[in-house]
Order: sequence, then C-alpha cells, then structure tokens
Amino acid sequence: MADTGWPGCAKSLKGVILDLCGVLYDSGEGDGVAIPGSIEAVKRLKESDLQLRFCTNETQATREKFVAKLQRLGFGISVSEVFPPAPAAIAVLKERGLRPHLLVHDGLLPEFDAVDKTNPNCVIVGDAAENFSYQNLNEAFRVLIGLEKPVLFSLGQGRYYKETDGLKLDVGVYMKALEYACDLKAEVIGKPSPTFFQSVLSDMGLKPHEALMIGDDLVNDVGGAQHCGMKGVQVRTGKYRPSDERHPAVTADATVDNLAHAVDVILGQRGRGA
Amino acid sequence: MADTGWPGCAKSLKGVILDLCGVLYDSGEGDGVAIPGSIEAVKRLKESDLQLRFCTNETQATREKFVAKLQRLGFGISVSEVFPPAPAAIAVLKERGLRPHLLVHDGLLPEFDAVDKTNPNCVIVGDAAENFSYQNLNEAFRVLIGLEKPVLFSLGQGRYYKETDGLKLDVGVYMKALEYACDLKAEVIGKPSPTFFQSVLSDMGLKPHEALMIGDDLVNDVGGAQHCGMKGVQVRTGKYRPSDERHPAVTADATVDNLAHAVDVILGQRGRGA
Repeated sequence: MADTGWPGCAKSLKGVILDLCGVLYDSGEGDGVAIPGSIEAVKRLKESDLQLRFCTNETQATREKFVAKLQRLGFGISVSEVFPPAPAAIAVLKERGLRPHLLVHDGLLPEFDAVDKTNPNCVIVGDAAENFSYQNLNEAFRVLIGLEKPVLFSLGQGRYYKETDGLKLDVGVYMKALEYACDLKAEVIGKPSPTFFQSVLSDMGLKPHEALMIGDDLVNDVGGAQHCGMKGVQVRTGKYRPSDERHPAVTADATVDNLAHAVDVILGQRGRGA
Repeated sequence: MADTGWPGCAKSLKGVILDLCGVLYDSGEGDGVAIPGSIEAVKRLKESDLQLRFCTNETQATREKFVAKLQRLGFGISVSEVFPPAPAAIAVLKERGLRPHLLVHDGLLPEFDAVDKTNPNCVIVGDAAENFSYQNLNEAFRVLIGLEKPVLFSLGQGRYYKETDGLKLDVGVYMKALEYACDLKAEVIGKPSPTFFQSVLSDMGLKPHEALMIGDDLVNDVGGAQHCGMKGVQVRTGKYRPSDERHPAVTADATVDNLAHAVDVILGQRGRGA
C-alpha cells in the first residue's frame, strides 16, 4: 500500500472532499448499492471536526433527485453539500450571457428550466446516454458550426463508466467527437477543472493544502485535486483498476482499499495528534 | 485564380484521379444530381490519352450499387475504375488475419458478406449515419476495450458532409470518439492515407509525379495527394469553402471553378504541347 507520507498530512487537514459514485455507492439497477462501510464512514466524518463536501460529475439527474437517491441508500447528505457540474455550468452561462443548446440526459433537463435557451449561442454536452443519437449529435453540431464563435461546454470528460449491464460511453467521448467536428476545444465544467475544485474549496473557506480529495477516478479525482494543490487519495472501489497504481502521469498520495479504510486512517491520525 | 505553375505540369501528366461526390455530382435525395459540365468532362478525359481513375471515401453502399448510381446519373464509369475504402479494408483484413466487428451503414454490409466476422479482433467504422446510435457505438467500444491489442480501422476521417437537408457528421467524428474512449489511434483506410493513393497509382502503373488528383476536399483529396508526391487541384464545388484558399497547412496546386474547367485547362495545355 502506497500510504507513505499521507497519514502525516491528516493532522493539518481542515476539510475532506468525497467523490460519490464508486466511493460511496456503485450505480446500477434502481438506486444502486452502498459500498460496504461507506455509510458509517460518512457519518464518522460528519461527526468529526473536518468540513465535508461531495464533488461529483453526475449529470443524469437534477441535484435534488440525485441527493434523494443517496438519502434512500442511507447517506445523511444534504443538497447544499453536493457539487455537480450542472449548477456550475448555469453560473457560467449567467456570468457570460450565454444561452445553451442542451445535449443532456432527460433527467437533467429540469435543472435548466429557468435558463433562457432561445436562439442558442453555445452547446452544453452532458452524459446524455441514450440521447446520444446520430440525430441529436448532428443537431448540436449544426448549432456549433453555425455560430461565429462556437462555444462548447462539457460536463466532465470521462471516457466510460461501469454499470451492472456493462461499460457505457461517457460524456468525454462525445465531447471529443464535437471538438473534432467543429475544430474547437471544449471547456470542461466539473472534475478535473481547477475552477470546479476551487468553487468547492471556496464554499468551505479553505486553502487547497488544507483539503483532501478521495475518489475512485485517478485522473479526474486524484490528478485534478493534486493539480489544484490538494492531496488526492484513490480508493480501490468503483472504476479503480490495478494499472492505476503504475499510471505514467498521476500518482495518488495514497491508495486505500475503500472509503472506510481512508476514514480510519485520517481520524486515527488526528486522534493521535490531538 | 491560383493556377500559377499548374497548367505547365499538364503536358507531362499520364493520369488523372478524380474524387466523386462534390466533383462529379452532389449527393441528396435519390441519386443526387450531376454537377453541370461534369458528365461531358469525364467523357473528354476518357477519350484522351490520359489514364483515369476515381478515388472516393464513399462507404454508404457497395461499390457495385454506387457505380450503378453514377451510371444512372449519366457517367460512363465502370466498377474496376472506382476505388472506395471498403475493398481496401478487406485486403488489409486478409493480409493481417483480422476478423472485424462492423460499425457501418446497412448499405455497405453486403461488401463484407464473404468476410469472417466471428469472434472479432478488430473494429471497422464507416460512415454509418443513422446506425451511429449510442447502443451501436457502445457495442463497438466494448469489442475494442475487450481486446488485448485493440485495432480500429476508420474508412476515411471526414468531419462532415453536406446533404440537401443540411450538414451531417461524417465517420471521422466517430473515429475520434472511439480513439478517445479506448486511448488508441485508428488506422485510416481511404483518403488521405498514402497507402490508399498508392494502390490507385499502382493500378495505373504510374509514379506520383505523373498523376494529378482533383477533389473538393482540400485536406483529404488535395493535401493527401500532395503528401504522396502528386499534384492536387481543388474545385469550387461540393464542400469547397472560400476559406480553403487561405488554409494554414494545405495549398492546392490550383483552384478551379469546377471539373469542366479543370479538364479544359489540362486538355488545352496538352493540345498546345503536342
């Protein structure tokens, strides 16, 4: 286990940011299933003196519906603690006076109810899953190619994820498709965008070195957090693959079996330091 | 007109290679329509002492059906003169002992009737159009990601093309999507692959400097041919855009209004030289 140097930082920590899918639960039929020990681990973090936030690239449901699912699974989590890309995207639209054409999952549409979508001057692509038809991708493409200055936002840049019935292509694949079609570079909203991590740190009122990110995605969770100056720990659950531990570009500050184990180490270390 | 230096080479030419869609005809409802003057221009080239071949990235129909369409439009063209990517791909499969999973247009499937597709060890992506569903792209992805050494062939690498009802995403966009999903580089079969142009030159028994390519696609027709040592001329029909004439990377040896005009210049120059 590559824990070297990590437990030491636990004493100076002021906040922890957790990824959700693959760390707290596995997705699949219905609500999915909680990963063993994770419900209790979240509870222990909440009872500690550490601040706690949840940072996810989930874009198949509104934040409210998504949090309701987590609550049904047994997690004591509230909407204001959860940071998904869509609300961040809406803030960017407002700031820059942009009206989106949406290529997203039906479940995410209500999030954009109050957003002006007439005469669109940008495109937002999310994990649209079955909505990634040839026709829908063509429509998004035609909006972009018709703009004098095409702007494409991508809610994450994941390659694929695992569901109970197999691997599924994620938003990043369609982001790349549109990038090539229109000869442009998308702006990623969500992990690993530094702006996205910064917004969570701001909400906690913490500096990067005071926070730790725990995720199952080596590049987007761990690498993204490290790029911002945070520590990044990978769990061996969710989309973790053994090859992650010899990745050419990203090395986690620690790799632990699961969230429960990570919380054991953090709280244990802080206990000894107190 | 940027014809400088071009008519001079016409005297030493031994063969001409023509792109089809956008040069001879415009696609759309039914068979599409012949571009004015192109039927007569092809006839004049065939009656000259120049060799003539047709080189296309068309992958929505078998070569036989495709040539039958050109004949209905009035072109005196035979199957053996036309070089599309699918037969070239089948030759590569045979050479390397590969069995493909196909993500192509229904119209192209019969071309692969005699090809062993059991237990696939590579993926071929063509311009599948409506067949580019989320489900079909996922299937191709799963085949690739499940292979120890994933091999992806792309029949062309176009971004988009124009039909009567608007712009349509082309095969290159889905090639990029699968490249990103699987972290690999596709092998392009068709223009602008040098191997593909070489196979046409071999069929004519010519060296590159003895042949001229005429196309509407600056990068794939003109740039691809030039990369092989041929001259490349762009016509202002089909997907030509005025911005092509100030492209940062590719400069055509000449840009002419249409095929009829190109043939006028070539045959006129040769007449004067004789």
